Amino acid sequence: MPFGQGRSACVIITMRLRNKPWASPLIAEHPEFIMTKPVDMQGKWQSRFDQERPLYLEVGSGKGQFIVNMAQQHPDQNFIALEIQEVAIAYILRKQVELQLPNLQLILGDGADLTDYFEPEEVTGVFLNFSDPWPKTKHEKRRLTYKTFLDQYKAIMKRGGVLQFKTDNLGFFQFSLVSMNNYGMHFDLVSLDLHHDDRVVGNVETEYEHKFASKGGLIYQLTARFDVLA
Amino acid sequence: MPFGQGRSACVIITMRLRNKPWASPLIAEHPEFIMTKPVDMQGKWQSRFDQERPLYLEVGSGKGQFIVNMAQQHPDQNFIALEIQEVAIAYILRKQVELQLPNLQLILGDGADLTDYFEPEEVTGVFLNFSDPWPKTKHEKRRLTYKTFLDQYKAIMKRGGVLQFKTDNLGFFQFSLVSMNNYGMHFDLVSLDLHHDDRVVGNVETEYEHKFASKGGLIYQLTARFDVLA
Ligand SMILES: C[S@@+](CC[C@H](N)C(=O)[O-])C[C@H]1O[C@@H](n2cnc3c(N)ncnc32)[C@H](O)[C@@H]1O
Ligand SMILES: C[S@@+](CC[C@H](N)C(=O)[O-])C[C@H]1O[C@@H](n2cnc3c(N)ncnc32)[C@H](O)[C@@H]1O
Repeated sequence: MPFGQGRSACVIITMRLRNKPWASPLIAEHPEFIMTKPVDMQGKWQSRFDQERPLYLEVGSGKGQFIVNMAQQHPDQNFIALEIQEVAIAYILRKQVELQLPNLQLILGDGADLTDYFEPEEVTGVFLNFSDPWPKTKHEKRRLTYKTFLDQYKAIMKRGGVLQFKTDNLGFFQFSLVSMNNYGMHFDLVSLDLHHDDRVVGNVETEYEHKFASKGGLIYQLTARFDVLA
Repeated sequence: MPFGQGRSACVIITMRLRNKPWASPLIAEHPEFIMTKPVDMQGKWQSRFDQERPLYLEVGSGKGQFIVNMAQQHPDQNFIALEIQEVAIAYILRKQVELQLPNLQLILGDGADLTDYFEPEEVTGVFLNFSDPWPKTKHEKRRLTYKTFLDQYKAIMKRGGVLQFKTDNLGFFQFSLVSMNNYGMHFDLVSLDLHHDDRVVGNVETEYEHKFASKGGLIYQLTARFDVLA
């Protein structure tokens, strides 16, 4: 059954950015910051950074406001932005060429192939921010919180590692609560109004989040783990 | 941390109804509909109805709009309204004396003592509707979705039986999602806007629900099980 409910500013099909002639050449010029053949780095991602640090991955980074700010605010952690759209990842790359953050790397690739890109236990945490909601039931397998995607996150994450999911889409959030629960995941925190939640400090906004929240929309967040360490 | 968030029309301490002089005598007059010593019926609740049927229990029925309507709409199921307040249960009794529903029984008792009132497997389903939210953290053990209460529901319910929880209180709903998930319960349905949810048909409103929803407030619902039958 489709999400008949609520309003979502997310478009139905994947948000397509207008093509930019500078995108492709820029990517070709900066192999030090971006991998377009991420399978080659499987098990070796730490060598792409100046230093080994716990590694956090964002799937579907858009133009990168979240991951760039996270990398700046957490110099003790390494970050990877993964995007399927060349133009989107090129926007992030443009920022990174300017900022030269030692703890940020980019991947042009597909979130459905994570187990080809990473070895088991290579990743400490995964972020999903305002992923495409795919509101039609016939498309539910494409939602990044569908069980086959959860399989992938679990496969590459350290034991006790955290998956954090934010969305403005009520139907998608309802679906994800049930999907992650039924998968056996352990919930650490559920927020049904993230921007007015006293428990959450230092929330880092994404582009979408900023846009929706400034129109008065509610933001939902779920933080969960595949296993609880004793 | 207290629920700093949102507005709730539920009062902080248990909603106290004004005492009514007719309440106590009415209860004394109708032992056929109400038990004030429910421990005496442990394991024998079906004998209080004209016929054996799957048994559903509501904990904290208030004035009984929900449970009376449920009993009328589902003649193939037996229902028990449990209330800790004499005046509240007396309001339900007054309706039942008029309606004489064969599938409705009342208990004046405490939801914390369910295992004294019921035998294992005696109950098929449990309803919690707009239970007192107890927003202060120091009172979280009093919330009817706290793990010690979940122990009680689990102990008296049949395998595969369903717990259904409705509230208008955002903080209480957040807490309950985490509490039930951490308990290992399996979510069947999460609704973050029950009154505009296409998936839910035949929702039966409670007094509180009607009041809050008519002011435009969101109603949340969680339906979950302690175990999944194969
Ligand atoms: C709605 S946008 C949100 C962007 C950003 N996270 C934000 O909150 O502003 C979703 C993004 O996910 C990307 N995306 C969708 N499916 C993907 C996949 N399978 N792998 C990687 N990225 C994907 C899209 O290209 C798009 O940029
Ligand atoms: C906020 S009212 C909601 C009443 C009704 N369910 C509704 O939705 O209109 C909560 C009710 O739960 C009852 N209650 C609170 N704690 C209880 C307990 N431990 N056992 C039984 N009833 C309880 C209160 O007396 C009160 O009538």
